[in-house]
Amino acid sequence: MTDRPQTTVLDRINLPSDLKSLTDRELFRLADELRTETISAVSVTGGHLGAGLGVVELTVALHAVFDTPRDKIIWDVGHQCYPHKILTGRRDRIRTLRMGGGLAGFTKRAESPYDPFGAGHSSTSISAALGFATARDLGGDPGDAVAVIGDGAMSAGMAYEALNNAGGLGKRLFVILNDNEMSIAPPVGAMSSYLTRLYTGGPFQELKAAAKGAVGFLPEPLQEGARRAKEMLKGMAVGGTLFEELGFSYIGPVDGHDLEQLLPLLRTVKSRATGPVLIHTVTRKGKGYAPAETAADRGHATGKFDLVTGVQAKAKPNAPSYTSIFARALIDEASRDDRIVGITAAMPDGTGLKKFAESYPRRSFDVGIAEQHAVTFAAGLAAGGMKPFCAIYSTFLQRGYDQVVHDVAVQGLPVRFAIDRAGLVGQDGPTHAGAYDIAYLSNLPGFVVMAAADEAELMHMVATAAAHDTGPIAFRFPRGEGTGVDLPDHGEVLEIGKGRIVAEGKGTAILSFGTRLSEVTKACEALRSRGITPTVADARFAKPLDRDLILRLAAEHDALITIEEGAVGGFGSHVAQLLAEEGVFDHGLKFRSMVLPDRFVDHDAPFAMYDTSALNASHIEAKVLDVLGVETLQGHRAENS
Amino acid sequence: MTDRPQTTVLDRINLPSDLKSLTDRELFRLADELRTETISAVSVTGGHLGAGLGVVELTVALHAVFDTPRDKIIWDVGHQCYPHKILTGRRDRIRTLRMGGGLAGFTKRAESPYDPFGAGHSSTSISAALGFATARDLGGDPGDAVAVIGDGAMSAGMAYEALNNAGGLGKRLFVILNDNEMSIAPPVGAMSSYLTRLYTGGPFQELKAAAKGAVGFLPEPLQEGARRAKEMLKGMAVGGTLFEELGFSYIGPVDGHDLEQLLPLLRTVKSRATGPVLIHTVTRKGKGYAPAETAADRGHATGKFDLVTGVQAKAKPNAPSYTSIFARALIDEASRDDRIVGITAAMPDGTGLKKFAESYPRRSFDVGIAEQHAVTFAAGLAAGGMKPFCAIYSTFLQRGYDQVVHDVAVQGLPVRFAIDRAGLVGQDGPTHAGAYDIAYLSNLPGFVVMAAADEAELMHMVATAAAHDTGPIAFRFPRGEGTGVDLPDHGEVLEIGKGRIVAEGKGTAILSFGTRLSEVTKACEALRSRGITPTVADARFAKPLDRDLILRLAAEHDALITIEEGAVGGFGSHVAQLLAEEGVFDHGLKFRSMVLPDRFVDHDAPFAMYDTSALNASHIEAKVLDVLGVETLQGHRAENS
Repeated sequence: MTDRPQTTVLDRINLPSDLKSLTDRELFRLADELRTETISAVSVTGGHLGAGLGVVELTVALHAVFDTPRDKIIWDVGHQCYPHKILTGRRDRIRTLRMGGGLAGFTKRAESPYDPFGAGHSSTSISAALGFATARDLGGDPGDAVAVIGDGAMSAGMAYEALNNAGGLGKRLFVILNDNEMSIAPPVGAMSSYLTRLYTGGPFQELKAAAKGAVGFLPEPLQEGARRAKEMLKGMAVGGTLFEELGFSYIGPVDGHDLEQLLPLLRTVKSRATGPVLIHTVTRKGKGYAPAETAADRGHATGKFDLVTGVQAKAKPNAPSYTSIFARALIDEASRDDRIVGITAAMPDGTGLKKFAESYPRRSFDVGIAEQHAVTFAAGLAAGGMKPFCAIYSTFLQRGYDQVVHDVAVQGLPVRFAIDRAGLVGQDGPTHAGAYDIAYLSNLPGFVVMAAADEAELMHMVATAAAHDTGPIAFRFPRGEGTGVDLPDHGEVLEIGKGRIVAEGKGTAILSFGTRLSEVTKACEALRSRGITPTVADARFAKPLDRDLILRLAAEHDALITIEEGAVGGFGSHVAQLLAEEGVFDHGLKFRSMVLPDRFVDHDAPFAMYDTSALNASHIEAKVLDVLGVETLQGHRAENS
Repeated sequence: MTDRPQTTVLDRINLPSDLKSLTDRELFRLADELRTETISAVSVTGGHLGAGLGVVELTVALHAVFDTPRDKIIWDVGHQCYPHKILTGRRDRIRTLRMGGGLAGFTKRAESPYDPFGAGHSSTSISAALGFATARDLGGDPGDAVAVIGDGAMSAGMAYEALNNAGGLGKRLFVILNDNEMSIAPPVGAMSSYLTRLYTGGPFQELKAAAKGAVGFLPEPLQEGARRAKEMLKGMAVGGTLFEELGFSYIGPVDGHDLEQLLPLLRTVKSRATGPVLIHTVTRKGKGYAPAETAADRGHATGKFDLVTGVQAKAKPNAPSYTSIFARALIDEASRDDRIVGITAAMPDGTGLKKFAESYPRRSFDVGIAEQHAVTFAAGLAAGGMKPFCAIYSTFLQRGYDQVVHDVAVQGLPVRFAIDRAGLVGQDGPTHAGAYDIAYLSNLPGFVVMAAADEAELMHMVATAAAHDTGPIAFRFPRGEGTGVDLPDHGEVLEIGKGRIVAEGKGTAILSFGTRLSEVTKACEALRSRGITPTVADARFAKPLDRDLILRLAAEHDALITIEEGAVGGFGSHVAQLLAEEGVFDHGLKFRSMVLPDRFVDHDAPFAMYDTSALNASHIEAKVLDVLGVETLQGHRAENS
């Protein structure tokens, strides 16, 4: 193929062990080829480009120096793992990245023994590496543990918890702080300024070691320079002090794109380290591919693109995304209420808060990758009289669950949770699925839990949340574009705990919570040809339930089917609890609750993921026929029944 | 009353504003009286004594200098708030602490405007204070925000997340680091060593300021000493650097029991601070009461006690506690399997891990107040071939929920969760209720979720968890003493997903998950006199469900009642989902699910809490009669129906 790069060294690499026979000069060449191959692959598949390009040399150096898979390299977040996958026996499938049935976009234990720990969420790598190191010392799997963690991920509390524990235990452990001055968004907070100061205060080309202990680890020819650097750094009053105070030997900053520095450094620490070592590398996200280097987000996540121009081939969307509608609605509400503030945990783009911040910079807060703090900070803002909108993806809100319970729900504080990426999310796969929030929020006393059926409903729910000042309230909505419905000028405030009838029918009632409503409507169109006309209702609220609506649907129909984009324990379970307590089951009701299946759904196009989850129109149709006892020619059966 | 102390100054204080008219000399006196009053009160009520005694002077100083409730004092964890409650209009009720209908043992917004933010879990105060400070700057509630946080609480990631965000925002904010060298357990980790080094390197009586900026805040007469101290600290290579790197002005360490230092210091920072200030005070937990000062845990939580001797009046327990049985069973399993390791997040006593650590010190890990890290550390240990038992209270496991989902469940790693304090917990009240774990774990694919019906069952579940090496497994058990059943020498490995019939009966089946089984048995004894003999079963597993058992119970009875010590969305909801999918409701089944009520249950004796929750024997009896349509003379009705 003409667009495949020339890769004469890379072509000789099947597994990392093949790197052992290469000279350093060949390793330099390998890094260049690996970069070209990564760019070529992502131009075909789309995906996280910038992060991988930033760690090409680091990937080569780690695999050249350490003995994987005996030694464990744990890539934090995992989205920088494409070069790693190419070197670890997966080059032949690298152009299937993030496609259904193809390679995952993150590290994944089930995929390769070279992925000792999977990650899609950030800041877990030091904890996991400490687990491996501790297991080793207790007679478990042998080998070294190396965590590679970005500077953005260092704003998360769990990274600090892990450093604190690792420094206390003093076990041999390697943490590579990959400092690219930017995680997904420009990093925020004091830690980021601290890291910047570490390498703006002095010459950078020279390898510096601020640590007393670290000097001994350095290759001999570098020790003199290190000693001088140490003196200089002392004068600066900064250094690796923060990490040293936590018990790590600190080495750096070192140029993470310079294999002439990286290789001897890693060889030395591997042969000499006895305790925890932090190596601070400075890299450039998107390094070596001009269109990525110059992009605002340095090619964080990209669609397929033209290799020469870098122009992405994007399908024209049919409707604005839910995220953009949320942002627009929030800005609209904020224009009439100066108590509204927005909070994001390092996802200003993904949550739409960036647009809000452009209109209301003083009322917008990016707290870093810090969901625990984000939630309690919002609780404090609410207690101080503001109307905080805490915009966090469903999957990441799991990080702040205790704060949701203890600081928000127990105190009944009016924090608004805008829960994006609810349900299955496509290429990011199971680590990012928004599957559990309905269950884990709806059983909290005093909470209001809503799901938008379409983007107009989302506008109403933003307005409803803004108006609801007596307790916590959450609304969930999916990734991707809306249904294209007409949008009102402003959202309307909904009555709390009231659903709506979408279509009156008979026999069967389908009660939808969230955006499966459009699939329900499609299913009903298909059923009409059989003379079956279910009643369709949009619950809007999982909590409080619309008791009147639900009991009326149960009383007036033979069958009631609920559907939601969430796991069991959520909306359908609350409906079942109501029906049971009211004695509705005593004399019979064909009740079914369609929920996400009891397995993690692999990455694929969202429609395909819902198909394998048996939550699309055809499955709803089959469920209705099944409940009614209608045998179909096709033998359609709901797959998860 | 003869045992009430003489408190002539304290008697003049109704609200903190009364402190403004006192001289410094009277404030010194007030502190002494406040200490005596606190000891006297806790001798009557029991409770957290040591923490409050450590902050008596700080409490007086803060209320004397700041203007509460306009200024917000946020006590981290809240259990050191007894002196604060005495000074803020609650002295008349201080001898009702932690009793049903009495004052809460923590700060509580609903209780007083002087409690701006409630807390029962640690490390939330800086986030909340930053929320108040930010709200103030945006036109919300005016006044200063002061967080008082212990050194143990500083090991939690969310405290670091908050410092990082606060340092970045640069808002006026006060954090008082109350360093008593011990939280509940002796503090662990590198941060603790760091704090210790801060005040072991030099003379302590003199007020020291390591910060460049902080010197300007100091009272004039102290600045010269501070300058000298600063030089000295620079020589020590430590100082407040860690906090300064995060953007705080650091002042300290200062003797937190010396009002002659505290008062001028607080007055100065109050008048001059423009950004975030961290004041490092060193105090002694249990200060001023010899029996507490010399106790191993310095009187962390105590029962009622004799004022002179300090001897606690403890009721003789009838049976060993669940916690002690867990510890014993884990030690037993570990004696035969050297891959078993134990992990606690700063609760070695509470979880029983301390006993395990005495037998297996190398296989025991206290990671600090760091549940996020604890869970992923355990996941790393499991991936490295060990058998980690992660012993965390139900309420605290909420802190590690994302790690449970993302690092354990998605990867199917065999981490064992020993979930103590499941269900309602008594005097610690709603912040500590273990209400949600059944729901938030049972919908995770691949998880096994068990609850012990008694302490012998707990032993079996420890053995079952030790043997289960193919995926995550959790078992929950309550606070307090067991039922007194005979205990086997070793636990038996249970068949996964199989419950047991406890009593064969007819008409109604009661399926219990957890320790309500004894209440079910009591209810059945009462029902027998009416000729009603329900079948009783112990589900043992919420996941996977015992489908055969449940479907058989449904088929052979007119009514099926589930009961559990958890909120809706858990065991009963999973049973309902199964019954619905199997079409059992189609032709009628009197199904009921008894769960915790949809409100937070105030602190009280556990029996009383379950009584108001309608989950005791009388309510089970009433539920059976209600389902059977039996009218009772007493008009017994289940309260939550």
